[in-house]
Parts: sequence; C-alpha cells; structure tokens
Amino acid sequence: MDITRANFTETLPIVSKAIDESSFICIDGEFTGLTNHRYNLTSYDSPEERYLKLHSNTENFMLLQFGMCTFSWKEDEQKYQVDAFNFYIFPFRSSFPGVPDRIFSCQASSLDFLTLQDFDFNKAIKEGIPFLRPSEEASVRSAIEEKQAYRQSTYKSPGVFALATLTNPSSKGPSTPITDQKTKDFTEKVVAKIKNFLENTEDSEIVLEPCNSYLRKILFENIPAAFPGKILVESRTDEQTHQRHIVVVRGASASLQKERNLQAKVKEESNLEEAVGFSKIVKKLSQSQKLIVGHNMLLDVFYTIQQFVCPLPDVLEEFKSLVGCVFPKLLDTKLMGSMLPFRDLLSTTALGDMNARLREPPFQPPDITVPGKYNVGSTKSQDSNLHEAAYDAYVTGSAFLSMVNYLKSFQTNKKILTSFSSLCSLISPYVNKVFLMRSFDIPYLNLSGPDLSPCRDHVFHLEFPALWKSNDLRQLFSPVGQIHISWINETQCWIGLHNKTQTKNVKSLVSGNSNDSFRLRTYKEYQ
Amino acid sequence: MDITRANFTETLPIVSKAIDESSFICIDGEFTGLTNHRYNLTSYDSPEERYLKLHSNTENFMLLQFGMCTFSWKEDEQKYQVDAFNFYIFPFRSSFPGVPDRIFSCQASSLDFLTLQDFDFNKAIKEGIPFLRPSEEASVRSAIEEKQAYRQSTYKSPGVFALATLTNPSSKGPSTPITDQKTKDFTEKVVAKIKNFLENTEDSEIVLEPCNSYLRKILFENIPAAFPGKILVESRTDEQTHQRHIVVVRGASASLQKERNLQAKVKEESNLEEAVGFSKIVKKLSQSQKLIVGHNMLLDVFYTIQQFVCPLPDVLEEFKSLVGCVFPKLLDTKLMGSMLPFRDLLSTTALGDMNARLREPPFQPPDITVPGKYNVGSTKSQDSNLHEAAYDAYVTGSAFLSMVNYLKSFQTNKKILTSFSSLCSLISPYVNKVFLMRSFDIPYLNLSGPDLSPCRDHVFHLEFPALWKSNDLRQLFSPVGQIHISWINETQCWIGLHNKTQTKNVKSLVSGNSNDSFRLRTYKEYQ
Repeated sequence: MDITRANFTETLPIVSKAIDESSFICIDGEFTGLTNHRYNLTSYDSPEERYLKLHSNTENFMLLQFGMCTFSWKEDEQKYQVDAFNFYIFPFRSSFPGVPDRIFSCQASSLDFLTLQDFDFNKAIKEGIPFLRPSEEASVRSAIEEKQAYRQSTYKSPGVFALATLTNPSSKGPSTPITDQKTKDFTEKVVAKIKNFLENTEDSEIVLEPCNSYLRKILFENIPAAFPGKILVESRTDEQTHQRHIVVVRGASASLQKERNLQAKVKEESNLEEAVGFSKIVKKLSQSQKLIVGHNMLLDVFYTIQQFVCPLPDVLEEFKSLVGCVFPKLLDTKLMGSMLPFRDLLSTTALGDMNARLREPPFQPPDITVPGKYNVGSTKSQDSNLHEAAYDAYVTGSAFLSMVNYLKSFQTNKKILTSFSSLCSLISPYVNKVFLMRSFDIPYLNLSGPDLSPCRDHVFHLEFPALWKSNDLRQLFSPVGQIHISWINETQCWIGLHNKTQTKNVKSLVSGNSNDSFRLRTYKEYQ
Repeated sequence: MDITRANFTETLPIVSKAIDESSFICIDGEFTGLTNHRYNLTSYDSPEERYLKLHSNTENFMLLQFGMCTFSWKEDEQKYQVDAFNFYIFPFRSSFPGVPDRIFSCQASSLDFLTLQDFDFNKAIKEGIPFLRPSEEASVRSAIEEKQAYRQSTYKSPGVFALATLTNPSSKGPSTPITDQKTKDFTEKVVAKIKNFLENTEDSEIVLEPCNSYLRKILFENIPAAFPGKILVESRTDEQTHQRHIVVVRGASASLQKERNLQAKVKEESNLEEAVGFSKIVKKLSQSQKLIVGHNMLLDVFYTIQQFVCPLPDVLEEFKSLVGCVFPKLLDTKLMGSMLPFRDLLSTTALGDMNARLREPPFQPPDITVPGKYNVGSTKSQDSNLHEAAYDAYVTGSAFLSMVNYLKSFQTNKKILTSFSSLCSLISPYVNKVFLMRSFDIPYLNLSGPDLSPCRDHVFHLEFPALWKSNDLRQLFSPVGQIHISWINETQCWIGLHNKTQTKNVKSLVSGNSNDSFRLRTYKEYQ
C-alpha cells in the first residue's frame, strides 16, 4: 500500500503490528542521487577507504521512497504472508521553530532512472511523509517547551500579552521603532480597524489582512499596548496557503489566555508528532531487532541512518557500531547470491534477473501469500512495478526465501518451508555482510567483525603523466604478463598482476626502465 | 502554452517569431531553491558584497520553469497582443559524450512554495526541455567530431571494425583480458549465437541480450576478431528503457560501414540539437536585444545566465558586463514600483497585490489581447494561476504597462496606449536597475553604471559576545537614541543611527564604556 502524509498516522498501528509479527523484513530505498563523483571507487579500495569515499560521494542526497515488506510465517497455512508498504518521504513543509529548511541534492541520472520506473514525483514532493532525526526532534521539543514556558509566564502578569505563537522569545528580537510615515499610517489604520471591531461588532476575533514580515513585527509590538487588557494578538498560518495572518482576539482574561495557550500547546505537540513522521517507523524497525533483508543494501543503510537517525561517523569502525545498534541483523541478497553455493548457479546478481533464475530448477519459487498488486511470476522485462521500492523489497524477499529453501533442501528434514527461527543457522554465514560493488578481492563489508584483508603483494600503485592511456600501462608491464588496471584518477591507478608469481620481477622491471616520469610503489608502501 | 521536450522543436519557430515581433518581453523563473543560507543579507551590504553573497547562496540551485510573455503592439487594434510560453526545464537525460550528469540542489521550502502553486514536478522532471551552455555544447560537439573522425579512419582500413557508437576513442580504454571461466563461457555462447545468425538466418542484424558494462566491453573487444570481414558491431540504447544493447550487423563492406557511420552521425547531430534545447531560446532572447521586463528579477537573471550561458563571474563589475552582453536592456517592475512617482501610490510591491492596485484609479488597466487561459481582472486571492511562471510574466507585463500609461498621462499627448518605441524615453530612468531586497539605502543594482554610494557615516560595525540580544545593543546605544540593527551573524551586526547628528557622540559612548567585550568600528574602518 502507498503511504503518504495523509494516511500515515492511521497506518502507523498497522505497520507496527506487521513489523511485530514478521519473521523478517525486506527494505529498499529510492534516492535522489547515488554519487557526486567526488571519488572514484577502485578495485583495491581498503574497506575504510571505500566507506569514506561512499560517505563523501553520497552526502546531501535524499531518500524519497522507502519500500518495506514484512514476511510473516503463518503456521496454519505453512507459508509466509507478505505485507507491502511503500512510503513516500519528503521534508516537513511548515515553518516550525527548530525544524530545518532542508537543502538536498539531486542527480539528473538518478531522477531519470526513477522517471523510467514512472516514479510519481508529485506524490513524493507534495504528499511525502516528513522526518526528523531524534536530535532534531529534541531541539524542536525544547524550542516548543521554551515557548510554552514563556507563554505561561506572560499570562500570569496582567497587562502583558501572549505574543505570536511564532515569536521566539530567545530570538535576537524585539522592539523595532517606527520611523517612516508609511509604516506609521499603516499601523494607525490597523489600530482604527481593531477599535471598530471592539466597539462596533460582537465577533470574537478579527483576522487582519496579510502583510510582510516587517509589518507583522511592528503590529505585534505595537497593537497590544494600544488596547491594554482588551485583546490577545496571535499569529496564525493558513494551512492551505501557508500565508501568515495576525489574529486579534477579543478579551484578555486569564482564563481566556490559559485556554488559548492550551490550544496552542496541543497544536504544537501535534505538529511535532507530524514532523517526526517516518523516523517513527525506522525507530520501530530498529527496536524490533528483526532480520532486515536488502539487495545491494549498503546505500539503503547509509541513507536510512543518515536521514532518520544521525549523521554518519567519519570512521568505519564507528559506522559498524552504529549499524550494530540501529539494525543488529542485516542480510544482503546480492552478497548471498555471490557466495557459495549460489555463486556457481547464478549468472547474474541483478535483482530482477537473479530472482527470475531463482524461480527455476534447481531452485523452487517460494510459496508466499502475496500483496494484491504484485504479480509473482513476472520476470524483469514484463515487470512494470520493478523499482517501486516496496516491489523491489518484495522481490528481494522472494529471492531470499528461494535461496533459503535451497539451503534447507540439503538438510535431513526436507520439508521446504518452515518457521523462520529454525532457519537461522542456515543463513548465519551471510548475516551482517554487505555487498561491496566493484571491489576486486573484498566482496563485502563485515559489519560484525574485522574485514577481509586479502594479500595484495601483487598490487602496485602507479603515478604517471596525465597523457598516458591504458595501452601505455600495459606496455610498461608487458614483461610481467597481463595486468588489471583500476583508475584512481587521471594520473594514478592500481595495477594488479594476473600472474602473482611475477610480483618479484616488477621491481627489476622498474629499475630497468630509465624513464622516471612515473612512480611505482607496492600496495604496502602506498598505504 | 506549456512547452516540454515533446513539442519544443515544433514550437521553436513560433517562439522565435513572437520574440521578433514583440515590443518587449516579460520573463519569470521558478527555481528549486533560493538560498542555502551561507550568508545573511544585511541592510548595509555594499553592492559588491551583496552580489557575492547572492552568488554563493544560490549556487547549485536550478531553474525548473521559465515563463515568457511577448507583448506585441498591434497598430490596427491599437493594443498589445500577448503570447505566453511556459517552458518546463530539466537536464538532458541521455548518456551522451561530454554531456554532464548534473547534480543540483533543492530547498524544501522552495519546492513547498511550488507545491502550493500546484506545480507539476512530474512534467518538469519527466518532460522538461534540456539545456547546454555554449561552452558545453562546444565540448560535446568536439567529442562527437572526434568520434566521427575515428569511425571515418577505421572504416578505411579493412579488417578493423567500427566499434561502439558509445566507445570513446580517447578514453583510457581497450583490451581487457578474459581471465575467468564464467566470462569465457559467456563469450563463447555469444560467439556461437552470432555464428548461428550468420549461417542459419537471413536477418540483417541480431540484437544481443542485455548484459553488464564489463561484459559489453569484453564483447566489443572480442566479437569483431572472431568474424573478420563479416560483421559490424554497434551499441544501441533503447530510447524507452535507456538499456544498452549490442547489435551485430551482417556484412562489413565499405559501403555498409559508410552508411552506418552516416546514420550514426545524423543521430549524434540530432541528439546534440536536442541537448542544446532551451539554451536556444535564451540565445534568441539575447540576440533580439529587446527590453526584458521582470519583477524582482535579479535571481531570474542569475539563474538564466548561470544555467544557459556561463558560470557567474566572481566580481560584480564583470557580472555587469556579462549581463550587458546577454540582456542589454532590463527593467524591474518591483524597482519601478518602489521609485517615484509610484512609491507614494503603491502600498505594496508584491506582484499580485501591486498589479491589483495598478488596475484601480489613478491607474488604468491596460487594454491587452490576453492569452486564453489567463483571467486579467483576477486579484491574487482568486488567482490559482499565480506563480505559474508564464502567468507571473504576464502579470508583470500588465503592471508594467499600467505604470507606463500613468507616466504617459502626464505627457501633452494624452492618448493612453501607443507603440512602444515612443515610450522609451518615459521608462529610461528605470532601465537596467534591478531591485535589491532588504537593502536599507541602496534600492537597486545599477547594471549600466556605478552603484549608489550613500553616506554611511552614521553606520557602525559591532562585534560582541554571542549571548548578546538586541536589547543589550539598544541599551548600549541608548545615549545616542534609536538604532537600526542588521545582523551579520551571532556575534556581528551593523548599527544604523536614526538620528544622524548623534554620529559624533558614538565614539565617546564607546570610550566611556570600560567593557571591552565588544569592538566598534565605523563603516569606513570596517571596509
């Protein structure tokens, strides 16, 4: 189901229940961008390097859609029931003390990718669910409490008036003198209008015409003093147009003020609730401690934590601790499909193609109770839903279960599907290992332990003139056979020897070459 | 009319003609953001400072919609005819050598503002017209020419084959050795398939199944050698899915190669034409040298030049020269409405409200032949079209003509509307002066001359502890009367004295104050 700002609150208990009852949960995100190309990923990045590059390359992009499928084992039916949720996400759109006016980046090719999936940008931007990190929530909460305390204190002192809901008492603020005739005229006209409202009408309040922020400030500072004990002045924002109006309320009794303050407080709390929005789901997911399954999920984890939890740390080990706290059990189906025994059975680990392959022998499509709109048997090309986030999450879960079934088939108890808890030992080799793209000899990031540290004695770092092409490099290395070139930038690359026994000959190769326009170092020397 | 990628080419001559026949042209842009808040604008920015702040604050945002209304004087009807064009803009979406994969910023509040105007983001992102700056166009052209030359040279040497349309000869590229069994098997399977196609079918070409970029590279490097003189290998991108396919074409005769090269060339040139897109309109606008009218138009000028012409320079004087070249005659209706005689007649210069005021006595609504969808008499609140860029441009033109008519009414010849050329002397005081927001004593940037340099002897720069609020400042300055405070940041501000005769007393005020937690300098000292 599609979830937007409009139906988020009513859906929250349904989503919560689905999470609680699930065996595992599949997720997928759609982003406004993937890389700002600040750093090239190379085949021989160390895990720490790779983390820092991805962190830097993805900063400021945003998650626009979060797909989530809960897979719940139904004992009586002996199969999984799937509930699919497709959340549209967008920053909070009201001005509200402490809520940042976010600035995020978009990458044309990523938006184009979403366009090809017929992504509804209007729905995301106009109806997306807002979000606040817990620290942002705390700072908004304290701004609200400060405001509430301020109102409380002013309502006790007679003759002082509750000022604008939107006037922050801690701001550099108040008391702008009126110096020009035009502003004087304007203020006098408004005072006359309020006088008329008080004397000649019985209305409980009057909404003043919109004016600019300077004039609003002037009015807030000057009107109450003109009618001591007779009115309250409030600021109100039209929910439709977001236009701010000043409202003058008849009467200034303590009980009226108390009532207005209470109303304002209720409104503020409910606004804060709305602003926290999708972060509640992430908190719930995290607290559930369920197994979270994704496909090529490193960036999903990056964006989810960054947007809804806290900024990413600058050190890989801290990132691992952080992920361990937020999502203690992760499984990446792209990594699972690249490991034995699947590596030899799958020609591709692209999600759609891999899932199609996992529905043919020796695999067996899992028996799942499917959400209405999704067609299980469909292959990628027929599949108009692919890359809607919740659908991708669903396909990920289906692929995951097919692989689990395959592992299970080697067990003594051949019964294909069973409750999830009994399968945990089967998947333990794959848990908390997240696929690394374009990495030659470190296929995954190990989130719950030290990373692989393959021997790179046959790998060399080379600096050379910008004019050199790969053929120049191959020619230089021709005495030691074929090489793998991985470009760092226009003047640096990694060279991996195919024939590792040639490693010892590389040094002589260089010293025999009188050309000192380049500089060669071993992997260790360069680190 | 709405103009997107689909109808842009056919509309181009209509727009061109409308520009040529116009007396003046109104423009308005809608942007993805207005400020990244890097710098606070202050009341006492120098013009140079203000330019640099705006330049820095608006970097990376993008113009998403360009509204343009041409106003053409119809001598026989004795009135203006308006043609309204609403262009949706979005970066080019195909991978194409030399075309940047743009990354731009969005500001939540700006997208929210557009949402309130019911802006169609899907239309902009999915159907927007692309653009290239002239320098980008030149670099794409030279990349294409290099490719064409390369193809030309290879087609002359028998036995060598035209490689991928998308293989860039100057890339660090070729010849990846096949080292793993999986890739060997894959390549052999494809070779067998091509063999079958050549021997057992009469089809002119075969489209290979999609595969990843590594395998495409392997195929490009290995297939031609397996069938010397028998095939051409091409890359083709599906226009719908953007998926890349390798196509193997039967035959490799010189004439076939020549024909394919020609086809590729035609396709490349037409892609380039498409990629240049909206920049053609800006070039046409510029070459027309017509009067360009906008409302509060500085950012419109910024974004238009930055996106479609060239990056903005780092020096205000260079910016002025640049604007002088691109748009030699500009008029800003917000500035016009803030100058005499209008200043005393208008209570607001917000576009919608100002235009409504300009339709009442002593003004007279201009008699205009209006584009169908726009309702002239509408006021802002009734006006659902407001902030569609072309509608804003239309309202700007209407307000402009009303002000021109008012000026004209003081002339001996009282005939209200007349051809535009006769009115030029009336508007000359307002030309090439662009409104500056929140500037206390410099109301405009003078694009065709030196800027105003008002006396700021009564203005002081103050540094102070971050805890100080405005009341602390007012208290400090209370001996010299009322002050205007303009915040630079948490610890710096400008102080303007209301009573300029007190200027001489400020120094003594400071020296009499033993507190050295602050530092006061005159405007000149600080510059």
